[in-house]
Amino acid sequence: MAVNLEAPRPENLLSISGVRLGVARAGIRKPDRKDLLLVAFDEGSRVAAVFTRNRFAAAPVIVCRENLADRDPIRAIVVNTGVANAGTGAAGIANARATCVAVASLLDLENSQVLPLSTGVIMEHLPVDRIKAGLPDCVKDLAASNWASAAEAIMTTDTVPKAVSRQVVIDGCTITVTGISKGAGMIQPNMATMLGIIATDAAVGVDALKYLARQATAESFNVITVDGDTSTNDTLVLAATGRAGNPEIVGEGTAEFGKLAVTVCEVAQLLAQAIVRDGEGATKFITINVEEGATREECVRVGKAIAHSPLVKTAFFASDPNLGRILAAIGNSGIADLEPSLVGLELGGVTVVEDGARAAGYAEEEGKRVMKQSEISMTVRLGRGIEAATVWTCDLSYDYVKINADYRS
Amino acid sequence: MAVNLEAPRPENLLSISGVRLGVARAGIRKPDRKDLLLVAFDEGSRVAAVFTRNRFAAAPVIVCRENLADRDPIRAIVVNTGVANAGTGAAGIANARATCVAVASLLDLENSQVLPLSTGVIMEHLPVDRIKAGLPDCVKDLAASNWASAAEAIMTTDTVPKAVSRQVVIDGCTITVTGISKGAGMIQPNMATMLGIIATDAAVGVDALKYLARQATAESFNVITVDGDTSTNDTLVLAATGRAGNPEIVGEGTAEFGKLAVTVCEVAQLLAQAIVRDGEGATKFITINVEEGATREECVRVGKAIAHSPLVKTAFFASDPNLGRILAAIGNSGIADLEPSLVGLELGGVTVVEDGARAAGYAEEEGKRVMKQSEISMTVRLGRGIEAATVWTCDLSYDYVKINADYRS
Repeated sequence: MAVNLEAPRPENLLSISGVRLGVARAGIRKPDRKDLLLVAFDEGSRVAAVFTRNRFAAAPVIVCRENLADRDPIRAIVVNTGVANAGTGAAGIANARATCVAVASLLDLENSQVLPLSTGVIMEHLPVDRIKAGLPDCVKDLAASNWASAAEAIMTTDTVPKAVSRQVVIDGCTITVTGISKGAGMIQPNMATMLGIIATDAAVGVDALKYLARQATAESFNVITVDGDTSTNDTLVLAATGRAGNPEIVGEGTAEFGKLAVTVCEVAQLLAQAIVRDGEGATKFITINVEEGATREECVRVGKAIAHSPLVKTAFFASDPNLGRILAAIGNSGIADLEPSLVGLELGGVTVVEDGARAAGYAEEEGKRVMKQSEISMTVRLGRGIEAATVWTCDLSYDYVKINADYRS
Repeated sequence: MAVNLEAPRPENLLSISGVRLGVARAGIRKPDRKDLLLVAFDEGSRVAAVFTRNRFAAAPVIVCRENLADRDPIRAIVVNTGVANAGTGAAGIANARATCVAVASLLDLENSQVLPLSTGVIMEHLPVDRIKAGLPDCVKDLAASNWASAAEAIMTTDTVPKAVSRQVVIDGCTITVTGISKGAGMIQPNMATMLGIIATDAAVGVDALKYLARQATAESFNVITVDGDTSTNDTLVLAATGRAGNPEIVGEGTAEFGKLAVTVCEVAQLLAQAIVRDGEGATKFITINVEEGATREECVRVGKAIAHSPLVKTAFFASDPNLGRILAAIGNSGIADLEPSLVGLELGGVTVVEDGARAAGYAEEEGKRVMKQSEISMTVRLGRGIEAATVWTCDLSYDYVKINADYRS
């Protein structure tokens, strides 16, 4: 049961001129479910991507990096669920390439113009024949209006499809940004989500697009955590088709870039938050604001230390204001010169900790009242500077254990 | 239900000449349970200690450090459960000191000759009056034979008391080492356990004893993890009374030191493993050997990355050989130049991964057979060097969530 997250209504998802999507039931791991997605970009589109930092990067990630480095522009993404094609060695890379060859042949592209994305079980081989057999159905299904269907096709243990659209006017042109994501488990910050695809019809220069992909990831998928596990396959793809008619955005410092960045970051944040809201077994959505840090990085580190602590997460699940666990997590965040007596903590507007100790006026009933809510916000003050960051996470429930104990059965 | 761990039989625990222990029911948090322990060391004893690296070190840890730095030798330890006296600011430090004053007055010591240890809920104040009221009962109870009773008195969510004795002959003298520990939750490597007290009747020089405390911690409490949370209170105390009659052991490089170190490390390891076996909700005891590392540190890091992964832990709970999760954890361990194609993995003698990919001969039934056992051993080979390390952990079950969601209720 996702926390305050509903499936997007197809009518609320805006098409992106120059992007078509098609799905199929290829029977990759389970019969009769949408498990294959093809995204086709019109000529002239630009594509940037951010990948997992896991050293066991999956075969599709390796092939994506190769193909992005090639001179031919990316024109298609193929996404399969069920099998992650990770821990599969040279055969896995050959299989990921074979998938690209099949797509390229159907769409009349070079092999290197295709990005392969996989998500699912690690250490099993990709059923390339079934993917090949399913691809013609994807091609037949290609349509600009298929974003909702695409969001469904990339789900694994997700319970709700994740998609969002936003618009912004730049230089008199209406720019649209639409994205989809999937997550649920093996979700750690410091990388892209499991899988995310965001497209815009804006005209954006190559370097500005790459910068934007990194910025949007840093402010969204890199500051969420469900369980602290970083997947082997995490990928965010950001595509710009240039069909909106705006003058090409080239400089990262321009007002136009700023406007687009705000909108793309908002879409990325909503997609990232949707992953947390649909985190495995999540019953609560928790926003951790860390303020008064010396650097943004240490604020993120403190936020993640809190968000990763199983003791903090289970206390939130139980609505138990055992808030000393948050202090212990802050103390564990690896800031060697942290001065505990300067640390403060507010939970949902209730002052819990002042000067590093339980606040004189804090009453536990107040903490309990906040902990019972399904949307909880806390603010940690470090007393070290003026930097800040926000991390989003969820609680740890019986169902997290159940889902992950039963995942493959 | 602890994994293959039974309560120590009192007759198997050997007294240490020069050490007396006494317990009391002080009603610190819950009525009618042993919750206060006093350990008294005869004159001439030497005491070393290792403490938490959590920046929110509890008040008793701060006072212990002060008192150890004082010139008067440590002669007593007072341990209370129920309240951790952490996140309690200046009042907490005053309360820890007041406890020392009370002990010193009863035993005719200087205040600085007492080490206060606390474990329990964070951010609540120590009930000093109840502790003072309970101390005379501890003094009356003081006896060299009370190790089993002492192990019971320091339990919190532990389900089994933890204590062990070993003997070794050095220079013709029989040396005895006896220790107790408590753990269960908020257990992370890279520090001492929640609480551990080890005593020997060996004569050991001050510096050698300090060195031995660090060494024993590094090879035991610092390579276990239940949930990756580092407590604010973790403390290991190592005491040597010098009553065995052996010539004082002074150099870390001597054969005598080596013999004592092996025995003390064995006691520390058994106590640390007992904490994992009794980890909150544990149903399996998992030994992670990491070999072929460039340094011992990176082997420990890889072992902990595996041991911390909620996805790996839940897979062990479910006996599900979803072993790709182990590769993902290795890839997340932060070794920037790890070469995945050199990595190997064996589980209970079954070769699962060769050259970074699923081994050709690996059959999932074999993995499943191993995963069903209550004692599981794995070996990871990094292909980077000749260093090795071992980390011990347990699985993550429904009961971990249940215990931590209900801890205070």
